[in-house]
Amino acid sequence: MAFDFSVPERVAEWRTRIAAFVAETVIPLEQRAFADGVDGELRDELQEAARAAGVWAPQAGAALGGGGFRFDEVAILLEEAGTSLLGPLALNCAAPDEGNMHLLDVVATGDQRSKYLEPLVAGAIRSCFAMTEPPPGAGSDPSALRTVATRTSGGWLINGEKHLITGAAGAAFVIAMVRDADTGSASMLLVDGDNPGMRVGDHARTLDSTMIGGHRQVVFEDAFVPDDAVLGEPGEGFRYAQVRLAPARLTHCMRWLGAARRAHEIALERAVGREVFGGRLADQGMAQAMIADNEIDLAAARALLWQTCWQVAEGGRGTEESSRAKVFISEATSRIVDRAVQLAGGLGTSDDLVIGRIYAEIRAFRIYDGASEVHRMSIAKRASRRTATRLGRS
Amino acid sequence: MAFDFSVPERVAEWRTRIAAFVAETVIPLEQRAFADGVDGELRDELQEAARAAGVWAPQAGAALGGGGFRFDEVAILLEEAGTSLLGPLALNCAAPDEGNMHLLDVVATGDQRSKYLEPLVAGAIRSCFAMTEPPPGAGSDPSALRTVATRTSGGWLINGEKHLITGAAGAAFVIAMVRDADTGSASMLLVDGDNPGMRVGDHARTLDSTMIGGHRQVVFEDAFVPDDAVLGEPGEGFRYAQVRLAPARLTHCMRWLGAARRAHEIALERAVGREVFGGRLADQGMAQAMIADNEIDLAAARALLWQTCWQVAEGGRGTEESSRAKVFISEATSRIVDRAVQLAGGLGTSDDLVIGRIYAEIRAFRIYDGASEVHRMSIAKRASRRTATRLGRS
Amino acid sequence: MAFDFSVPERVAEWRTRIAAFVAETVIPLEQRAFADGVDGELRDELQEAARAAGVWAPQAGAALGGGGFRFDEVAILLEEAGTSLLGPLALNCAAPDEGNMHLLDVVATGDQRSKYLEPLVAGAIRSCFAMTEPPPGAGSDPSALRTVATRTSGGWLINGEKHLITGAAGAAFVIAMVRDADTGSASMLLVDGDNPGMRVGDHARTLDSTMIGGHRQVVFEDAFVPDDAVLGEPGEGFRYAQVRLAPARLTHCMRWLGAARRAHEIALERAVGREVFGGRLADQGMAQAMIADNEIDLAAARALLWQTCWQVAEGGRGTEESSRAKVFISEATSRIVDRAVQLAGGLGTSDDLVIGRIYAEIRAFRIYDGASEVHRMSIAKRASRRTATRLGRS
Amino acid sequence: MAFDFSVPERVAEWRTRIAAFVAETVIPLEQRAFADGVDGELRDELQEAARAAGVWAPQAGAALGGGGFRFDEVAILLEEAGTSLLGPLALNCAAPDEGNMHLLDVVATGDQRSKYLEPLVAGAIRSCFAMTEPPPGAGSDPSALRTVATRTSGGWLINGEKHLITGAAGAAFVIAMVRDADTGSASMLLVDGDNPGMRVGDHARTLDSTMIGGHRQVVFEDAFVPDDAVLGEPGEGFRYAQVRLAPARLTHCMRWLGAARRAHEIALERAVGREVFGGRLADQGMAQAMIADNEIDLAAARALLWQTCWQVAEGGRGTEESSRAKVFISEATSRIVDRAVQLAGGLGTSDDLVIGRIYAEIRAFRIYDGASEVHRMSIAKRASRRTATRLGRS
Repeated sequence: MAFDFSVPERVAEWRTRIAAFVAETVIPLEQRAFADGVDGELRDELQEAARAAGVWAPQAGAALGGGGFRFDEVAILLEEAGTSLLGPLALNCAAPDEGNMHLLDVVATGDQRSKYLEPLVAGAIRSCFAMTEPPPGAGSDPSALRTVATRTSGGWLINGEKHLITGAAGAAFVIAMVRDADTGSASMLLVDGDNPGMRVGDHARTLDSTMIGGHRQVVFEDAFVPDDAVLGEPGEGFRYAQVRLAPARLTHCMRWLGAARRAHEIALERAVGREVFGGRLADQGMAQAMIADNEIDLAAARALLWQTCWQVAEGGRGTEESSRAKVFISEATSRIVDRAVQLAGGLGTSDDLVIGRIYAEIRAFRIYDGASEVHRMSIAKRASRRTATRLGRS
Repeated sequence: MAFDFSVPERVAEWRTRIAAFVAETVIPLEQRAFADGVDGELRDELQEAARAAGVWAPQAGAALGGGGFRFDEVAILLEEAGTSLLGPLALNCAAPDEGNMHLLDVVATGDQRSKYLEPLVAGAIRSCFAMTEPPPGAGSDPSALRTVATRTSGGWLINGEKHLITGAAGAAFVIAMVRDADTGSASMLLVDGDNPGMRVGDHARTLDSTMIGGHRQVVFEDAFVPDDAVLGEPGEGFRYAQVRLAPARLTHCMRWLGAARRAHEIALERAVGREVFGGRLADQGMAQAMIADNEIDLAAARALLWQTCWQVAEGGRGTEESSRAKVFISEATSRIVDRAVQLAGGLGTSDDLVIGRIYAEIRAFRIYDGASEVHRMSIAKRASRRTATRLGRS
Repeated sequence: MAFDFSVPERVAEWRTRIAAFVAETVIPLEQRAFADGVDGELRDELQEAARAAGVWAPQAGAALGGGGFRFDEVAILLEEAGTSLLGPLALNCAAPDEGNMHLLDVVATGDQRSKYLEPLVAGAIRSCFAMTEPPPGAGSDPSALRTVATRTSGGWLINGEKHLITGAAGAAFVIAMVRDADTGSASMLLVDGDNPGMRVGDHARTLDSTMIGGHRQVVFEDAFVPDDAVLGEPGEGFRYAQVRLAPARLTHCMRWLGAARRAHEIALERAVGREVFGGRLADQGMAQAMIADNEIDLAAARALLWQTCWQVAEGGRGTEESSRAKVFISEATSRIVDRAVQLAGGLGTSDDLVIGRIYAEIRAFRIYDGASEVHRMSIAKRASRRTATRLGRS
Repeated sequence: MAFDFSVPERVAEWRTRIAAFVAETVIPLEQRAFADGVDGELRDELQEAARAAGVWAPQAGAALGGGGFRFDEVAILLEEAGTSLLGPLALNCAAPDEGNMHLLDVVATGDQRSKYLEPLVAGAIRSCFAMTEPPPGAGSDPSALRTVATRTSGGWLINGEKHLITGAAGAAFVIAMVRDADTGSASMLLVDGDNPGMRVGDHARTLDSTMIGGHRQVVFEDAFVPDDAVLGEPGEGFRYAQVRLAPARLTHCMRWLGAARRAHEIALERAVGREVFGGRLADQGMAQAMIADNEIDLAAARALLWQTCWQVAEGGRGTEESSRAKVFISEATSRIVDRAVQLAGGLGTSDDLVIGRIYAEIRAFRIYDGASEVHRMSIAKRASRRTATRLGRS
């Protein structure tokens, strides 16, 4: 046998359970979230139900209380969770906490595990990841990092400004990417949410509205953190960013694939139930084209995602593969949701049909975790380098 | 000389004046509108300023107090007004009032002109146009019209439900498309906003948020209107819909072309001011591709729009031409705004940079006034008919 | 483990061997084929070399002298063969013979196996598959089949016209799809190439030029075939067409994926070696976008192909899955080759650089074996049927 | 009145005459040209007929024997000529002669006019324009020019290599772009076709096959030309290239717009006459989408072309405008022809239906006269410069 694409029994069981949980428990709460936003109360309600349903944190290690699945299995389960915009939050596999759990699991010291990782996996606290800075700081180009940490007695003083930090309001701790004022090397520092030198600013009024804690400015003004606030080892910031990067990209792909599938399914339900021009909308040729293109994009996105996640599960770094997958899947899911809006017609732009909300929420996915253009540049450079090497021109 | 694309002096003057007005007066009010919505107070403030600035209602006849421009000249001026999402409201050339002014100007009786048209052009009142119904009623396929008017003593009783009626809340009158219960023919009825048989429901939580009066359900339950509430002549509903249709589509194109240009300009300003990967963002090849594609789409959209408006100005019905223009321009402006978001990066999805707001507002333009698919069907049918006729196969 | 995408050792060995064979033996013969066409002599030369290189017919059963690989393994090997337009012919895995081998292997009687299948796999003869008819016959819609077989003493008389029959000139036998004049059911008949009632007409001057035997008209005028010329069982024509269909589509995908990869690689070699505007072409942003999009499309196409072939290898019919894969891969490979032309510039349109030839050859792939539109219709119908069933509306 | 898009009577008359001439005289000769190529004999036959039909050289000045039309009027007439791939050759408005006529008309000295321009307009001779060089010479980046002219007694010695020179075989003279070996400035030299130091090489086997004289290598080895072989003034090469550039791009757009329209019309004729799945092909939704998209692209391309040509006719240089038009129209016509192939199905890829031939011929149009990417770069730079200037950042 060359390949194996079969879904193991335990994965299939969880998938079924997640699907039922989303349908019965999460979806009924969506309109409330769309109208009023997502707050701690709604989060608690969702997470309690998820625990009770036996679908908690599929991506986290079993020892930590998670599902303990391989990364390629996680692809199946997080797609299912993603069929509601609230599903990942309910299952505690939403960004940015999910990526932070992974990072901490790989690099945190023993004390950091018990103080930060364990309660995070348990859903007792939330966190955020503070890398992006307003221009001319670190954005598409992380090397432009300007937030600095200056050595002081017993610790560091952080100064600088981050923006668009997802989940910042209400986070129990912040993983802050900083540059050592002396050496210029980058480190990650764990900053508690109540640090008096840290200020969380306003939510940017962005297109999306269902991310708890918003996308916010975070300002450090002589924020003191002790020596043991260095995540893992000092000077390893960029390497750790890589540790978090590829998996975090791919879990985004998983969740958004689920959301796109949901939008498609809603539109399809409308199309089979609606009469226009003397026939079913679903039987009009141009509607068929949109339906088929969605089915095709879903299939291609899933196949590429599974293959990429298998590579990561097998121990690959997946940098290049995840770049390719991220560009393809972020653009394919955008196309799918756009077609779903169009197929659903006027109400397709509304929260009522959910599709309109997904349309607004998904837009930024082509930008964050590496804009499509940045990934394309990186993919092209690697391909060119391989070719030049082969030709002896490197 | 074959063609003439030069801009007459009076048009150029108005364009300059509108540009200054938008820059100095309208744009400073945008963030308030984005944060708090658009209400009557803001509308009054904007319209008073527009009158004072000498840019009032360029599309309306001079005798009515408007600019008195030809339709191809209007194309230039409404593009300029559209550079702010609030510009058309300020200049009283926004949908749906602007389309209603045109319709009333062509078909209203003398009394209807003084009661409805004159105060509408003057900005004293607002209106709405109630055609679209929830499935299985009139949507993409207007012939599915289900709202009925039943003859009664001295007038009509209207029953039925409309939805997604833009501007319904606060409208002084509604132009309601109805089917005669006896004859089956369609008429337009003028229903005053305080008609006790008419109920304006909730705003659908759609992607856009700057249309005053929202997009609402309108329910008629034995709503009585007198005989003279028939707009123009009875039984002419579908013909009048055509009168309103092509020009209303084209004024949408004008305004959205302005909005798309604005999004492009904002993104371009960011791109020339931002450093990434050791150079200006505007000099990165993939950014250049987005910039150039926007410039190209703007130029093509404008050229097609001008030609189509010239045909209408010359007395053509422009049904087919405006279908082509509507599909092309609604899709081109969508592409432009999407690229602007991408070029601007994370903040491109926010109200702050305005682009994010335009992205959300413009989505429905590919759906209303004829979804792209409906126009394509119609365009193809006409082309096939011509070909079949030429081949003697009709 | 959820999935397994690893390449078995024996497959990897064959792939390496095929790659070397294509590079050393096939590619050096390409320009001769482009200039003079592909004739029997060139075919013999290529096939003899392939046998000697130990890369013969990877897709055929081991008992028949082929490689004996699973269908998902074949995907890897036929992609490699496809990197030259002559590779599949050399390895005896080219259309239409390869599809005919599969069909015969599944449905032929014992005598038919020895008379037709064995020499076909051995490369001793060529064949063709005569299904498509000029309008208004069987084309996109196979049910419009008009070629008829009329019962006569000891056999059948065939009458009708086929067109665009690939490989017809020089084929030792034709598998002809016919309709029973009496029952209306469809059968496949094996017609020897020297049948006096069969005439092979001119090659249509199509864009491609490397298919041996061309794309030709085949006319049957009272062509007599004996009773045992019925392939398998009579009346099973449409079912047998399905047997051939999905695998044949997928082997096209495999081969064209190889061709597209080749075009990309040639363009990339140019791009890393060429200076423009003071830098390497491969480092220009818009060139990087084309390079990256090719890398992404190749990866997505391959992932979808492998998954689909695995489903077929596991015994699935793969009708819907292969439709999705065919649309995606035919369009993705078209995009890839188009970008390769663009990246290579003026010479990209020439036979010299090979890319121009691939561009011309690949165009029809979006049409044959089901045009994209026909597959989309079929995919949409299945998706709508599933949804309607789920909703209890079927 | 703002604009005028009406077609003057004399233009309409010529258009009608050209349409009739193409239909009655040119199209009947197409299959011969596709099968056997285009030679001098066919050219003479076509041009004699065109003169007799009163449709000679619409773009050339009346004093020279041409139609004497404005450039925006020419847009209408060359589109019509372009509806056959042989039309422009017949009317003596084909590339590269047409562009050379324009260039000579603007910059040639009196003697050069009588020796080169007059017989060229008369159709007595052909010419070519030798700018492009193989890498690393002048290609996308003209400044990389490597062919040199060295001062010698009474003239110049040219050395260097050009490639892909359209029409080179059989040209009576070559306009060669060269660099002055001493000063480094560029000049254009008129080299007679029988110059013993010039060698015309093989035709590159490119996708197209209807350009008389092919696309060839031209090698200069100490080719001597006298002092008066300098076209216009020495050192003005790049400026003269600009003189030729924008108009030559636009006449390409005109002709290809005609070819694309022709492909669309042929496909449409098939679609209205063909039954599939129980209905007319032209009535299938996905076919309607392709038909409508072609109609829309044709309309948008034409509108943009006319506006751009008007700007040039009014005396504008049109550098940026023609870049935008060239990108849009070369890509729009490519899309149109691709859809026509798809709509026509299998035979759509053949010379028989003409569409297949147009598909092959049009591919290079996105590359020559400035590849889309080079134009996009240039358009973006200009847009960015304007924006930076406005912001005071230049």
